[in-house]
Amino acid sequence: MQDRLDGVKAQVQAALDRAVGALPPGELQDAMAYACAGGKRIRAFLVMESARLHGVSDDAALPVAAAVEALHAYSLVHDDLPAMDDDDLRRGLPTVHVKWSQATAILAGDALQSLAFGLLADPAIGDAATRRLVAAFAQAVGGAGMVWGQALDIAAETAATPLTLDQITELQGGKTGALIRFAAIAGPLIADADPAPLAAYADAVGLAFQIADDILDVTGNEDVTGKRVGKDAQAGKATFVSLLGLDGARATAARLAADADAALAPYGEAAGNLRRLARFVIERDT
Amino acid sequence: MQDRLDGVKAQVQAALDRAVGALPPGELQDAMAYACAGGKRIRAFLVMESARLHGVSDDAALPVAAAVEALHAYSLVHDDLPAMDDDDLRRGLPTVHVKWSQATAILAGDALQSLAFGLLADPAIGDAATRRLVAAFAQAVGGAGMVWGQALDIAAETAATPLTLDQITELQGGKTGALIRFAAIAGPLIADADPAPLAAYADAVGLAFQIADDILDVTGNEDVTGKRVGKDAQAGKATFVSLLGLDGARATAARLAADADAALAPYGEAAGNLRRLARFVIERDT
Repeated sequence: MQDRLDGVKAQVQAALDRAVGALPPGELQDAMAYACAGGKRIRAFLVMESARLHGVSDDAALPVAAAVEALHAYSLVHDDLPAMDDDDLRRGLPTVHVKWSQATAILAGDALQSLAFGLLADPAIGDAATRRLVAAFAQAVGGAGMVWGQALDIAAETAATPLTLDQITELQGGKTGALIRFAAIAGPLIADADPAPLAAYADAVGLAFQIADDILDVTGNEDVTGKRVGKDAQAGKATFVSLLGLDGARATAARLAADADAALAPYGEAAGNLRRLARFVIERDT
Repeated sequence: MQDRLDGVKAQVQAALDRAVGALPPGELQDAMAYACAGGKRIRAFLVMESARLHGVSDDAALPVAAAVEALHAYSLVHDDLPAMDDDDLRRGLPTVHVKWSQATAILAGDALQSLAFGLLADPAIGDAATRRLVAAFAQAVGGAGMVWGQALDIAAETAATPLTLDQITELQGGKTGALIRFAAIAGPLIADADPAPLAAYADAVGLAFQIADDILDVTGNEDVTGKRVGKDAQAGKATFVSLLGLDGARATAARLAADADAALAPYGEAAGNLRRLARFVIERDT
């Protein structure tokens, strides 16, 4: 899997560099390029594997993988703003608003979202597939998806009572789950095939991913994760670890990884990389 | 023209209410609906008239008109933020970050951008037209369009020397011109026809619109415009009025209105509403 992940990383970075490089030079372009550099590229990998399983060419899948990563980059830039999670460190480097300004961070995030949707209009994807992707992407991102989950998360910070397990699961289903699900079903969306197995896989992996994040926030090393740790506990936020305990959270993540594995049954051996990804997600240290 | 404008206003408001109404209830949805209420709907009118001139049905044009207005609403919410233009009044009401919070304003703007792109995936538009619209919309909005123009505007506030006429014309071509151009060429984009005449019309109208805004900032009445006036002069910003004088700015706007009129020649009598709009844009008091 590591070879394939490294290959996807290089392809997606090149696609993002091309797209951002085509914009007028200046601070906005610099900030966009900065925000698009690095990252684990798990979402891009999901797109490329999902496409491969449905016989979709790399030419059609790559702009979608780049779109998902550009969108993810925008969400990080905005989530890091002082009015949101107020983070000064991301991937081991100063966040965009620290390096430039809040105005540049807001605008770079906005422009990355536009860029992401624009990538879905690549002619290699096909017109009908573009329409399906744009509709699903808007649903995954906006007021019923990622942004909605982030709004719930911000609201929870000032709520009188901590969230319940059901509430935090719903919140994370939007905040991190919606984009992971979109990435995982990109293949069937392009090929106009049944997205149900990969959607079930993604929902399990997405939740496992978030539980692993909460575990890392407690056990992680800032030098390794490249972002501040211990923030949630400091803020008194309900997390999967605070609700389930560390062992309970680990057990739940392992159970979800098994669910993800089972969901891939229709794909048999061909889904080996996605099976390995599900394990990687809960075993990662970054 | 007023009847048609009133009709478009009602249709577009209903389309936006439907789209926002389909989202999960809560503060984010409330803020999005608030940001989408009111406005002159000039951009929506451009879409509907441009579509009519190219034989595009209202069913296909309406989601595009709603998309343009949702996008415009997002840009106002983000531009009003303290880190940007820091406005507390918009359309005579408190801005979103004043009424709710900066976090909610950032998120509502983000979600309105997603919503706008999602509207372009309406099946009534047709798959190939959706692809063309998404590509052009991303170009008009992002790091080479509206957001790029806003970034130049923010940078100009702290620049050592005021902008020249060429620089301010280029800036406004992005900040307000790009979306107006997209709206005006929506018809030919959907119909796959030559967008050149309407693009020329839009470039003249867009610049005239901005010059009229600068004139209103000097001569306007806050009770009528519904937003703060005199801000640009206070901030020592270069504007068309500071560069051309009030009479010079008025003369330039009138010349641009005539250019807009001339650009519509290929459409003859059918473009009467667009001709009237060009005059309305420079004569408005709001």
